[in-house]
Amino acid sequence: MTQPIAKRFATPSIDQMPDDIRARLLAVQEKSGFIPNVFLTLAYRPDEFRAFFAYHDALMDKDGGLTKAEREMIVVATSSANQCHYCVIAHGAILRIRAKNPQISDQIAVNYRKADITPRQKAMLEFAMKVSSEAHAISEEDFTAVANHGFSDDDIWDIAAISAFFALSNRMANLTGMRPNDEFYMMGRLPK
Amino acid sequence: MTQPIAKRFATPSIDQMPDDIRARLLAVQEKSGFIPNVFLTLAYRPDEFRAFFAYHDALMDKDGGLTKAEREMIVVATSSANQCHYCVIAHGAILRIRAKNPQISDQIAVNYRKADITPRQKAMLEFAMKVSSEAHAISEEDFTAVANHGFSDDDIWDIAAISAFFALSNRMANLTGMRPNDEFYMMGRLPK
Amino acid sequence: MTQPIAKRFATPSIDQMPDDIRARLLAVQEKSGFIPNVFLTLAYRPDEFRAFFAYHDALMDKDGGLTKAEREMIVVATSSANQCHYCVIAHGAILRIRAKNPQISDQIAVNYRKADITPRQKAMLEFAMKVSSEAHAISEEDFTAVANHGFSDDDIWDIAAISAFFALSNRMANLTGMRPNDEFYMMGRLPK
Amino acid sequence: MTQPIAKRFATPSIDQMPDDIRARLLAVQEKSGFIPNVFLTLAYRPDEFRAFFAYHDALMDKDGGLTKAEREMIVVATSSANQCHYCVIAHGAILRIRAKNPQISDQIAVNYRKADITPRQKAMLEFAMKVSSEAHAISEEDFTAVANHGFSDDDIWDIAAISAFFALSNRMANLTGMRPNDEFYMMGRLPK
Amino acid sequence: MTQPIAKRFATPSIDQMPDDIRARLLAVQEKSGFIPNVFLTLAYRPDEFRAFFAYHDALMDKDGGLTKAEREMIVVATSSANQCHYCVIAHGAILRIRAKNPQISDQIAVNYRKADITPRQKAMLEFAMKVSSEAHAISEEDFTAVANHGFSDDDIWDIAAISAFFALSNRMANLTGMRPNDEFYMMGRLPK
Amino acid sequence: MTQPIAKRFATPSIDQMPDDIRARLLAVQEKSGFIPNVFLTLAYRPDEFRAFFAYHDALMDKDGGLTKAEREMIVVATSSANQCHYCVIAHGAILRIRAKNPQISDQIAVNYRKADITPRQKAMLEFAMKVSSEAHAISEEDFTAVANHGFSDDDIWDIAAISAFFALSNRMANLTGMRPNDEFYMMGRLPK
Repeated sequence: MTQPIAKRFATPSIDQMPDDIRARLLAVQEKSGFIPNVFLTLAYRPDEFRAFFAYHDALMDKDGGLTKAEREMIVVATSSANQCHYCVIAHGAILRIRAKNPQISDQIAVNYRKADITPRQKAMLEFAMKVSSEAHAISEEDFTAVANHGFSDDDIWDIAAISAFFALSNRMANLTGMRPNDEFYMMGRLPK
Repeated sequence: MTQPIAKRFATPSIDQMPDDIRARLLAVQEKSGFIPNVFLTLAYRPDEFRAFFAYHDALMDKDGGLTKAEREMIVVATSSANQCHYCVIAHGAILRIRAKNPQISDQIAVNYRKADITPRQKAMLEFAMKVSSEAHAISEEDFTAVANHGFSDDDIWDIAAISAFFALSNRMANLTGMRPNDEFYMMGRLPK
Repeated sequence: MTQPIAKRFATPSIDQMPDDIRARLLAVQEKSGFIPNVFLTLAYRPDEFRAFFAYHDALMDKDGGLTKAEREMIVVATSSANQCHYCVIAHGAILRIRAKNPQISDQIAVNYRKADITPRQKAMLEFAMKVSSEAHAISEEDFTAVANHGFSDDDIWDIAAISAFFALSNRMANLTGMRPNDEFYMMGRLPK
Repeated sequence: MTQPIAKRFATPSIDQMPDDIRARLLAVQEKSGFIPNVFLTLAYRPDEFRAFFAYHDALMDKDGGLTKAEREMIVVATSSANQCHYCVIAHGAILRIRAKNPQISDQIAVNYRKADITPRQKAMLEFAMKVSSEAHAISEEDFTAVANHGFSDDDIWDIAAISAFFALSNRMANLTGMRPNDEFYMMGRLPK
Repeated sequence: MTQPIAKRFATPSIDQMPDDIRARLLAVQEKSGFIPNVFLTLAYRPDEFRAFFAYHDALMDKDGGLTKAEREMIVVATSSANQCHYCVIAHGAILRIRAKNPQISDQIAVNYRKADITPRQKAMLEFAMKVSSEAHAISEEDFTAVANHGFSDDDIWDIAAISAFFALSNRMANLTGMRPNDEFYMMGRLPK
Repeated sequence: MTQPIAKRFATPSIDQMPDDIRARLLAVQEKSGFIPNVFLTLAYRPDEFRAFFAYHDALMDKDGGLTKAEREMIVVATSSANQCHYCVIAHGAILRIRAKNPQISDQIAVNYRKADITPRQKAMLEFAMKVSSEAHAISEEDFTAVANHGFSDDDIWDIAAISAFFALSNRMANLTGMRPNDEFYMMGRLPK
């Protein structure tokens, strides 16, 4: 149903990619059963690809005060505010799986204020949204509000850095017309 | 998974509803297998309920230049701009069914500009979005732009009136904390 | 002075209207001495006309915690924010009469914060304006703020529903280029 | 009906004003039958008063390509966008008189796009509104659009300067809670 | 490096200016070593020139609770929000000199919330910015917030009036494409 | 003059940094004579530091259709829109040096539309600003507008990617209260 990736920036064939990038693509294909389009689209620029995924992994795959589901909540909420087709649908899928909750992504994408999340998670998303839309006005009050829910300074850095990283990611996805793979739409919606 | 309807405005028991309203609820339950929460929530005010659904039916169930799927596209696009939890998820379900397309609602909700729709449908949504967000600035240029895609004056009225009606509906749903029934999340996502 | 109603959507002749609609128009003409253009414009679509006025009457002609003047204040304030020519001028006339105050409508249309109204009425308009412009962000704090001025939950529904209904009405008036009748400009400005 | 001028910035008694300011107030009272509150409020600061009215007179009382009614249209349109109580009501009165049109001010205050004015006047107001709300983005296209309606460079300066002067005036009126005199509400609404 | 003043509104030759205006230009040239372009540009309209500088001097050259540096802070902060080329660069120069601080202007122009200023000065700028961008919503809370930092009512008038005057000034500078003289860029950046 | 880096996220001592990060800091100190605070602040998180600078270098230090000065123009324009203290002042310094133009950075920071740049550079900044503020609405018209000035698809990727990368960078700088080093303020302002 989805149209092919926009051809303005051509996806290189996997054979012609640098070895490390091809290896990453094959690894993700092995694990997921398909290659998410973000890998194919960004492979257009190998150096940027490497930095992008190094940054992504540093923020999303680490341990810390935020669960992996909570990290994905930040991605879905801020990407929806940025109207990022790829990120909302692909990370919505990941969030459903991480949270083991088939409804959470749709709820957060539409209006996180009404989603079935904890007050602590709402405070987390409030802070992330402020970083996303008006970081210049972040004040001590904002830090205090989120810290009052038990987030450490390191957690707050994580919340903000994920929001900031997807500010970049959303813009690249909108530039390239990056499209979510068909597989993402149903992932995590049915019980295993 | 969803929390019960916000209790500020109590849903009357079906037994205590006026006969005509109870009849409508039972009919929709018969047809759909459940009673969408919009019926229960708005039954709090019987006269407003009757007017709301009379208006809804006049716009959504009629024949005309817009298909039923296209009418639902307008609902999903404008309700997403208004961050209306209930309307995006419930009408997203209806749109998937009407369009026989499991991806279309998520695409339109995130960014209709990137959705897999025709240029004519994009022009329809542009007009609907302008009615939704800055109707005071609608100009002859806007009418011409949508008319150039083959929409008649009556079609344009329909596009605008659906957008306008859901401007009302979205606000009531946000006021009441109206929640989509669990059933909506999966409707139309799997082949029959 | 005013130009005729925009001809894109032709006003049917009164003779050709359905009986119930013609009856309503004649009744309002009998009472007011003229037929407000909203009746003529919306008669283009009889079913929508019936639902529109049923909704209107359910909200504006009922008893309850809000006076009729207060209901009209909500209409004028939100319609002015929506830059709705017809609604500000026609309902401004009605508000002057209901409030027996020749200045109140102009004051509220320009800046309700500076109008000669009570703090309770200002709180009412604050809530109505939030429903009008960002209903998705209504929070418990907003409910508390308005409830603190003595408004019941039913009053709050009324405030919000009037704001929501005129969100619809303003958009239809802007779509159709609906013009206020000349009579409205002077109504309620002179002592009887 | 209007409340007295806000007391934060006390109006000096006329006796204690500098001679030239008192003379101006008495002259306007002689001519108009009352002293518009802008004179009383700004007399709080004599030097600013003198500069304000010198600027005002240089822009509003001169000859040139704009009629006096057109100058007042700019004041009403931009002051309404700035939600300036005093300026919309007081200059709305002056506009009705200058234009010999009892409806024009209400129309322009609500939505100048729908007012009964000429295309040339709409172009004039478009330019004035851009100066008012986003002067930083004025482009050659904007100059061309207004010049195409026959406005000379000097006319364009006038349009912009009136918009800019009332950007100042509106802010001072909102700061001081300046209230229109009761007399303004009815001025120019009835045939002489 | 800078291009000549935009030629749409021709700068009169100094010889042909009225005596009082020529005298002022020569005086400022004597004092500063050059004639700031605002004098040349506005001399296009002698009467407006006289009113403009009379207003300017009444606000900027007086004694009172605000230091001259603080007055310039207001100019730089609000002119930056209005994206006024001339005012940010010319008054940035004056602020550096008045504050004897080579960094303060760049800091305030980018984001006054992060500048090296006192909490009292931040409160002053908050109030000035509200006057600049939404004067219609100034409330008692805003007055209280700034008064709590020790500003008198007369100081508050000054803060607001400077913000309001540069609302005018910024719009005229953007209209005319007024360019800062080359001299301003380096003024106050090096120790004397 | 500048205050120390905000202590919420402590800068590690250079001795305790990982070897590769310490080496980069010493190299930049060797070259520039000081260590820009962005290196110290981001060293708080070594993995993110590495990804950040790898991304930065991939975009800013490469060859291609954009000069290094033009790349910095994009940084200054978008960082100013995001009110990023550090980025405007630090990259403003770099831009002055790259462009050998002591005025260009202040001009672009205030209002790039009025800066002394070529029409081609203005088109470049228009595209970069759209990516920065509303990437979701980028259309074929936007691509065409910038391509018409001779930018290749690869150049357009660069323009967008720099804008997107600094969307991330600006948010991190605002989060951490990152302050520009004193050295940046004067760099490139005086002839060598």
